Amino acid sequence: MRLLAFAASLRADSWNRRLIALAASAAGAGAEVELVEFHAFDVPLFDGDLLSALGIPAGAQEFARLISAADGMLVASPEYNFSLPGTLKNLIDWVSRARPVPLRGKTAMLLSASTGQVGGIRGLWQLRIPLEGLGMIVSPDMYTLPWADKAFADDGTLKEPERQTRLEGMVAGFVTLTGKLSSRALES
Amino acid sequence: MRLLAFAASLRADSWNRRLIALAASAAGAGAEVELVEFHAFDVPLFDGDLLSALGIPAGAQEFARLISAADGMLVASPEYNFSLPGTLKNLIDWVSRARPVPLRGKTAMLLSASTGQVGGIRGLWQLRIPLEGLGMIVSPDMYTLPWADKAFADDGTLKEPERQTRLEGMVAGFVTLTGKLSSRALES
Amino acid sequence: MRLLAFAASLRADSWNRRLIALAASAAGAGAEVELVEFHAFDVPLFDGDLLSALGIPAGAQEFARLISAADGMLVASPEYNFSLPGTLKNLIDWVSRARPVPLRGKTAMLLSASTGQVGGIRGLWQLRIPLEGLGMIVSPDMYTLPWADKAFADDGTLKEPERQTRLEGMVAGFVTLTGKLSSRALES
Amino acid sequence: MRLLAFAASLRADSWNRRLIALAASAAGAGAEVELVEFHAFDVPLFDGDLLSALGIPAGAQEFARLISAADGMLVASPEYNFSLPGTLKNLIDWVSRARPVPLRGKTAMLLSASTGQVGGIRGLWQLRIPLEGLGMIVSPDMYTLPWADKAFADDGTLKEPERQTRLEGMVAGFVTLTGKLSSRALES
Repeated sequence: MRLLAFAASLRADSWNRRLIALAASAAGAGAEVELVEFHAFDVPLFDGDLLSALGIPAGAQEFARLISAADGMLVASPEYNFSLPGTLKNLIDWVSRARPVPLRGKTAMLLSASTGQVGGIRGLWQLRIPLEGLGMIVSPDMYTLPWADKAFADDGTLKEPERQTRLEGMVAGFVTLTGKLSSRALES
Repeated sequence: MRLLAFAASLRADSWNRRLIALAASAAGAGAEVELVEFHAFDVPLFDGDLLSALGIPAGAQEFARLISAADGMLVASPEYNFSLPGTLKNLIDWVSRARPVPLRGKTAMLLSASTGQVGGIRGLWQLRIPLEGLGMIVSPDMYTLPWADKAFADDGTLKEPERQTRLEGMVAGFVTLTGKLSSRALES
Repeated sequence: MRLLAFAASLRADSWNRRLIALAASAAGAGAEVELVEFHAFDVPLFDGDLLSALGIPAGAQEFARLISAADGMLVASPEYNFSLPGTLKNLIDWVSRARPVPLRGKTAMLLSASTGQVGGIRGLWQLRIPLEGLGMIVSPDMYTLPWADKAFADDGTLKEPERQTRLEGMVAGFVTLTGKLSSRALES
Repeated sequence: MRLLAFAASLRADSWNRRLIALAASAAGAGAEVELVEFHAFDVPLFDGDLLSALGIPAGAQEFARLISAADGMLVASPEYNFSLPGTLKNLIDWVSRARPVPLRGKTAMLLSASTGQVGGIRGLWQLRIPLEGLGMIVSPDMYTLPWADKAFADDGTLKEPERQTRLEGMVAGFVTLTGKLSSRALES
């Protein structure tokens, strides 16, 4: 089974980047994980005229290629203004124009780290909408990490064993879910 | 009273652009309306490192300046993937970093045109969230125009008198709402 | 594989009741379907004191029993006031107090009939939230039937062959999805 | 100015009941507040046949009467399963059938107390939808009280002065908002 993993943040020192690294590592026990930088998916602002003139931009094609080759994806996304980041939505808007829509039938697990107490959960609920609208099976289990600036140990794991165990369990559950749904997995 | 108006679409031949022109015209009876191109608010993809290094980009500063000088805004926004456009959310994400947040206390009326039968209403419900989260008073009345490709007469008004009348009435109601809330209006 | 099916409407002459009958019939090709009346799940208004004093009421226990014995459920739900029916949410609120939560790990497919043009889709998006929050795998494909009062033929099927075919295809896809996820199915 | 206030909880010992009492008291400085028990709005489960046969039930008529006589309302609502309580939605579903819809044009301020860390904010975002859909002006400012079981002093105020001050400020802002919008207030 193959999983794509990325943090939907362009900031070099992003808590979501640390969180996705940890989730990717946990998934590595049961899947081949491709962890990529969000910059790999850099695209212009969505513009229908640009689409007509030049087609789908390289960053969105790269996303389409990677998700097509995978069974599912892990996304750690910050919450911006009670919703998903505009950057991530803009990427989805471009990718949604590829045919067939490469997200359809793939699984997704959503995570969020924040330095506040709510942990980014509101943004993840808004992120579900375009993903599900495009045909993804989004895991009902979503992992949120509040107080992220105090959460990580030097080795990149979570200081509180309970949080680390919960993350590993949730990721393992997602790998199992994806395995059941993946025709690729069933064939092998 | 002053209102900012724009369509959240970069496409030259956008139905939402026609719709906002019509709404701006209707609002012109009771307010001074500044109708601007969405390109005036062009910004890079949101990146916390860019914000730290260079501050808020020019396009978002322009939006901040215009909404600060206004009592409210009219926005015609397409629906992309059952949610708001990533481009518009990306702009909001930049503008939300200005202090004080220039959207706070202003009013907004949301409109959407689409060539389908649902008229973009799902996108508008998702657009409410960041705007309200940032302190705007968003009118409960939202105008959606289904089958937009068949809706406009040559003079830019709506062919069906009922739709035209409903738009004018809703915009007039929004102007009244904004007038009640605006300290500017009360002073004059 | 077993599926529970019901319409979330108490009205005798409900369009959603007709729609669920049709969906249940379509599912019957690949699953054992238990189609029940919403009245079977009659419960009082949720009240924490009532819960403490008398436990979970009979209607919610019946729902818990049926979904526990099933692999997934088909629900046809009207849209009330841009959201899910209070009656259905009230039932979910009661059922959510059972331990273990009987919805967890089960699949759901959501449908909606309405006499308007939007077909109830806004209500279904709001219905996803508590179901997913409680751990259900809700199919990304949702079936909405606009203009329901003109949609049904005398034999209970949909007059427009395209709509009928789309319903059958979506239900078949859901049966396949449920089959992949169901341990019950894998065992047999 | 008159405000209706209630907690959307039937439980006698409800944290939301304490919170609404505090909010009503704060509002009392600038408005006449009618604080009522949620039991005053007891209604059966919504049923279109019941509506046809018997009309709108007494509890919903009482709600309609009180909100019609008021300029706005304060509602403290628990979060149930990541959404609004079914009980409250069921009441709204009944009230929405009254003509004219008595909620239209009134203001609302939403509050939520919870014993967890998220404070009920997800439920309030879902509660906004039917209220705004029915034409209410819902304040963008929502008050959430996390860890409610440790929050109240013996005199019913909040132990942490910062929380108490924030509540009072937000309620005062809502009274001002309602005053600007209320024709009643402007007349007097």
